Amino acid sequence: MASLCLNTYGFNILHIDDRPAPSTAGRADGIQPRTIEVLRNIGGVGILDNPGDLASGGSPFKGAGVAKKMISQGVRVYEVAFWDPTDTEKLARTSRAASCPDFIDVVDNYTLLLHQGRIEHAFLDEIEARRVKAGTSKSTPPGGVQRPFSFKTCRTVGTGSTSAASAGLGASADGSIGAGSDPLDATHPVECIIVDGNTKKEYKIRSKYLLGCDGAKSLVRRAIAGGEVGDGEWQGKIQMKGEATDIVWGVIDAEVKTDFPDILYKTLIHSRDAGSIMTIPRESNLTRFYVQLQAGEDGKGAHYTRDSATQDICIARAKKIFEPFQLEFGYVDWFSVYQIGQRIATNYTLDQRVFLGGDATHTHSPKAGQGMNISMLDMYSLAWKLNLIEKGVGSREVLLPTYEQERRGVAEELLKFDSEYSRLFSGRGPSLQSTASSSSLGGSSTPTTDDPISAKAPQAPGPDPGVKAAVDAEKFIGVFKKNAFFTSGCGAVYFENALNALPNGSVVSQSPHGHAFNPSGGTLIAGQRLTPGKVTRVSDANQVRLQQQVKMNGAFRIHIFAGDLPKTKERLAGFAKWIDSPESFFNLYRPQGGVKASVLDGVLTSGEFHSTEVDETHRRNPFFAFLTVVATHYYDWEIDHLPGCLRLYRDQVYCDNIPDHRVPVPGNEAPLHHKYGVDRSQGQIIVVRPDGYVGAVVPLAEEGWLALSEYFAGFLVRSVSKPRL
Amino acid sequence: MASLCLNTYGFNILHIDDRPAPSTAGRADGIQPRTIEVLRNIGGVGILDNPGDLASGGSPFKGAGVAKKMISQGVRVYEVAFWDPTDTEKLARTSRAASCPDFIDVVDNYTLLLHQGRIEHAFLDEIEARRVKAGTSKSTPPGGVQRPFSFKTCRTVGTGSTSAASAGLGASADGSIGAGSDPLDATHPVECIIVDGNTKKEYKIRSKYLLGCDGAKSLVRRAIAGGEVGDGEWQGKIQMKGEATDIVWGVIDAEVKTDFPDILYKTLIHSRDAGSIMTIPRESNLTRFYVQLQAGEDGKGAHYTRDSATQDICIARAKKIFEPFQLEFGYVDWFSVYQIGQRIATNYTLDQRVFLGGDATHTHSPKAGQGMNISMLDMYSLAWKLNLIEKGVGSREVLLPTYEQERRGVAEELLKFDSEYSRLFSGRGPSLQSTASSSSLGGSSTPTTDDPISAKAPQAPGPDPGVKAAVDAEKFIGVFKKNAFFTSGCGAVYFENALNALPNGSVVSQSPHGHAFNPSGGTLIAGQRLTPGKVTRVSDANQVRLQQQVKMNGAFRIHIFAGDLPKTKERLAGFAKWIDSPESFFNLYRPQGGVKASVLDGVLTSGEFHSTEVDETHRRNPFFAFLTVVATHYYDWEIDHLPGCLRLYRDQVYCDNIPDHRVPVPGNEAPLHHKYGVDRSQGQIIVVRPDGYVGAVVPLAEEGWLALSEYFAGFLVRSVSKPRL
Repeated sequence: MASLCLNTYGFNILHIDDRPAPSTAGRADGIQPRTIEVLRNIGGVGILDNPGDLASGGSPFKGAGVAKKMISQGVRVYEVAFWDPTDTEKLARTSRAASCPDFIDVVDNYTLLLHQGRIEHAFLDEIEARRVKAGTSKSTPPGGVQRPFSFKTCRTVGTGSTSAASAGLGASADGSIGAGSDPLDATHPVECIIVDGNTKKEYKIRSKYLLGCDGAKSLVRRAIAGGEVGDGEWQGKIQMKGEATDIVWGVIDAEVKTDFPDILYKTLIHSRDAGSIMTIPRESNLTRFYVQLQAGEDGKGAHYTRDSATQDICIARAKKIFEPFQLEFGYVDWFSVYQIGQRIATNYTLDQRVFLGGDATHTHSPKAGQGMNISMLDMYSLAWKLNLIEKGVGSREVLLPTYEQERRGVAEELLKFDSEYSRLFSGRGPSLQSTASSSSLGGSSTPTTDDPISAKAPQAPGPDPGVKAAVDAEKFIGVFKKNAFFTSGCGAVYFENALNALPNGSVVSQSPHGHAFNPSGGTLIAGQRLTPGKVTRVSDANQVRLQQQVKMNGAFRIHIFAGDLPKTKERLAGFAKWIDSPESFFNLYRPQGGVKASVLDGVLTSGEFHSTEVDETHRRNPFFAFLTVVATHYYDWEIDHLPGCLRLYRDQVYCDNIPDHRVPVPGNEAPLHHKYGVDRSQGQIIVVRPDGYVGAVVPLAEEGWLALSEYFAGFLVRSVSKPRL
Repeated sequence: MASLCLNTYGFNILHIDDRPAPSTAGRADGIQPRTIEVLRNIGGVGILDNPGDLASGGSPFKGAGVAKKMISQGVRVYEVAFWDPTDTEKLARTSRAASCPDFIDVVDNYTLLLHQGRIEHAFLDEIEARRVKAGTSKSTPPGGVQRPFSFKTCRTVGTGSTSAASAGLGASADGSIGAGSDPLDATHPVECIIVDGNTKKEYKIRSKYLLGCDGAKSLVRRAIAGGEVGDGEWQGKIQMKGEATDIVWGVIDAEVKTDFPDILYKTLIHSRDAGSIMTIPRESNLTRFYVQLQAGEDGKGAHYTRDSATQDICIARAKKIFEPFQLEFGYVDWFSVYQIGQRIATNYTLDQRVFLGGDATHTHSPKAGQGMNISMLDMYSLAWKLNLIEKGVGSREVLLPTYEQERRGVAEELLKFDSEYSRLFSGRGPSLQSTASSSSLGGSSTPTTDDPISAKAPQAPGPDPGVKAAVDAEKFIGVFKKNAFFTSGCGAVYFENALNALPNGSVVSQSPHGHAFNPSGGTLIAGQRLTPGKVTRVSDANQVRLQQQVKMNGAFRIHIFAGDLPKTKERLAGFAKWIDSPESFFNLYRPQGGVKASVLDGVLTSGEFHSTEVDETHRRNPFFAFLTVVATHYYDWEIDHLPGCLRLYRDQVYCDNIPDHRVPVPGNEAPLHHKYGVDRSQGQIIVVRPDGYVGAVVPLAEEGWLALSEYFAGFLVRSVSKPRL
């Protein structure tokens, strides 16, 4: 993800991997709804842009996009079934829950399952397509990954700390880089040593940044933590804080025959005394099994460790937990063992030049299907901030610390959930004690109001209150459902900072026009993702999804909800006039020297392509995209009648006239205005960050755009010279 | 399409093309909604079935399917804009219409545009994937197409007619093939001569059938018509009946710059005195222009012929018609000239062994975007009938004549529409005379009740009644809208025959249980396509589209709408018991010797893959697929409780609980039962033919399945021995 994003932004990157080839089986496999949304937004390049692809016999699907490729290859889980022992049956379905309940407003309302090799390949193909587009692919291997290369050590130079091991973390990253003896110290303050896995030759690399996405046993983390190889990786200045347990699980991807009816569902199975299993259906008729291995078999207390647990033991245990259902194992694609623990890094960065993300910063159990998702989104979240800084329009001091602040918040939330969830699943949680005395273990759990599917049924016989199950089924199911918003990825919320103009936040309280933020009635919240909406694109009457209209290109998305044109005409004209003025953010924060925000900049939209208004092209600023959404039906006005910046982005003018089943509006009038709480006689400006998160909401009025001016001034800078790239 | 379908059915085919390579530009470019639906139903093979694709570095998207590939590459037209001269403006938008109005119940409610080369490649890729699957690809070129090979002549032998030229058409095709001197006469009665375009060497080919899909100037048609080369192709026994006009049109695919606001819409432009233009947006920012060339320029009467019309003339005329808008031409991708005419072949076949289809049987103007669509569907419609016959379960005498009967009906409908439409467009129609005297030319045309979009607006100034336009705009727009159902492809209706149990049709009137067909309340009509429905697949809770669940595999789709299980339990049990009896169609019409219905037969569904009920596998009949749709919520029952044939197809058991905006049912209960008019206390059986057309509708009751028995007996036969393949 780091490579995909940075390649999209056109950077020259060195990407190393110590494995000789991508994964071919197993490992992570669950893509959550928000991740699919992000991947759809990253999009695909290359299909229509290489007219020669057919003639050359090349695959026209290179560059189809990560999301499309994965969706075509994976299977979907819409629902989770909970199985427990009951009074009358050894194992019975006691509850069900939507994988992504209907109250979560997201287009791809399922978890997508496919093995990590397919996921990696989908990324590598798309990276390759973008490198071809950027002209940076020639001298590198496919996908730009150097294999096998391993990381040895790193430090920062000239940032105030001369070595990571001695003073790295305390150094301030104020952007005023001291002049070192080496001119590279100012421009490329990161030094690292990598080793060619084939020749064992070492290379010293100088770079602007180093992103350590090297997993739970991160060598980059160890290097910047100041620890020595062999001194125990938790002894340095970055520590992994948290807890481990002795609960050991086996993971198997296999082909099975079974009469268990829910083999194509995600299932959570608790046996009476043989432990628990989670199953997940997978591509190519595989099934993934997470098998609990610590519990005593038949109450005899056999205790497996990570080393003593074998595939055969795991299969035997799985068959036992599945009883009375048949479970025959055929081909086994992958097997592994892991121990549950929740840990988080005390720091994510050295000098804001070396960054950690993914498992290098947070580890936990795999069973909620979160790890890969949150890890991908770590890098997705960092990349656009680096882009703004390196293109000369972003404030290094303000933007970079928000990476750790925002992503640590999400990781902490994840660990909190995972700790409770996996302990309950293992029957080792705080609720374990309460289980025996619980008098309400039944399947007739009170339906939550926000989960219509679960509210409908559980008609299957529930576990009898008298049965002494090892697991508190009701509590476990409750935790699962309560966290669905978070585990879908849609509930990953960022708190207030310079980028998120939340009520009572610093942006709002420190701005002279702070009162203008968050107009009354508005339903969108800064620091949360823009919820989806379907609109008619006026330039070609296509029915499109608003949130996917601007692909990840580094730009802030300025949504002008124009309401009813006859009433908002003056406001629109005022906004457009101000945007055209020298003091607008559109003109203040403009990259110099024709620098592009991303490799997508060169791709003309149809509207641009056909345009005869050649003089206007130079006015574009690639870091801002205007999207105008009008409530008035488009049969009653013309794009050419809209003022300046709105008309300029003619392919991004929309009519809000598509019914939305979540928004029961009489006559289906302007359902999206209604959903976002926009007063149609006033209008609203909704700023969405390059990562799809709402940054600020203001009224379509002078105080609104003046407030936006202050918002952007909080983290953008005026580019004075062409940035070095 | 013929090759794709026949390869899917596993036939050994020889496919020749006289062009050395597929198209690279221009030609047909519009895919209509029903065609997209069909292509989605043909689906894609190979993505999940080749686990080695990643490791081998091969493209995992070979076999993604024709529809997906084309949708990723094309652009969509949702709306058509009509431009005419008005009293105040040289050119103004006078009306709009949905390309596929909302009353048409189809999922892909747009026209997809991309050039024919991309379309051909999407087909060739999918054919190749299927040939690999069937093991027939090794000795042939990519896509199995021999190029360049041309057709010279053909005849049938041993069918009663010894030569096509002398007696071909009068011969009966009764299936009782007389014993010729050559044993091949009985099995491979078609003889044809083809020529290698490179070596000029001639080959004599013997085959079971010959499909002449060789266009308007079809050499196969000429050969079986009995005409001689050079004698004029209309002199033989097959004639192209119809009319030609002197109206000449130019066609250009080009990159243009323009300030015309609707360049991304399909537009129909009538200038006051420079003629008419149709524009269509296209992939890669191309625009297609159909430019009228016959009208006098500036009233001077310059008259172009097919030979004198050049690209420059065409461009100059286009610019003139576009006035006062700018229109600058850049790169021109393709240029051609055509003359409007409507013709249809008097016969589609020789001896039911040589078949014609596509432009070889019907030609017309390209502007309604119908030709390629209806041509593709000709072969789609023929292939599954050949499949039933060749696999030993279809009646040759009954099935084959339905090809011409059904497809000629559609072609005649097309020609009728096209004649009226293109004459009106050219200002040469019967309405031309009435135009001058018309007093209601205005844009305020009466909205049709079934077109909510057009009913909404036309607020743009209409043409003034006093303006003497060359075209009757109102009438033209009316014809366009009236025919939207037909041009979407969804209105292609088949009339009564052995396959379509229509009220008062022969199947119904001749059957002892005829009264059971078409139960009261039912909304589906035999001879029309199954309208779409979304349901929950119970085996994995996936939300799926019912009409796409069984891919084109040669099977009849037996939909059991089971209603409310508590009320229909006995009926279901009765049906399942009868199906299991020796006299059911399921057991009577079963191919011998393990013959497959299609190459898809070998692909196990997830449910089959996991199944432990090994004994049941042999009971499957590949020519029938059971789909059970239950109104009762699936939380209240188990697939394993369903009887025999319903449980057997466990991946095809559905719950009817997904809201449909077209079906406002209180509480969203069983919207699809409601849509199809199924009484939930009774149930219904809906038979859908292998091509997605409804064949018969009967109640879920003994008289219903006995009626079905008679229905299938009308065109299926008991296979007595393993067919020769």
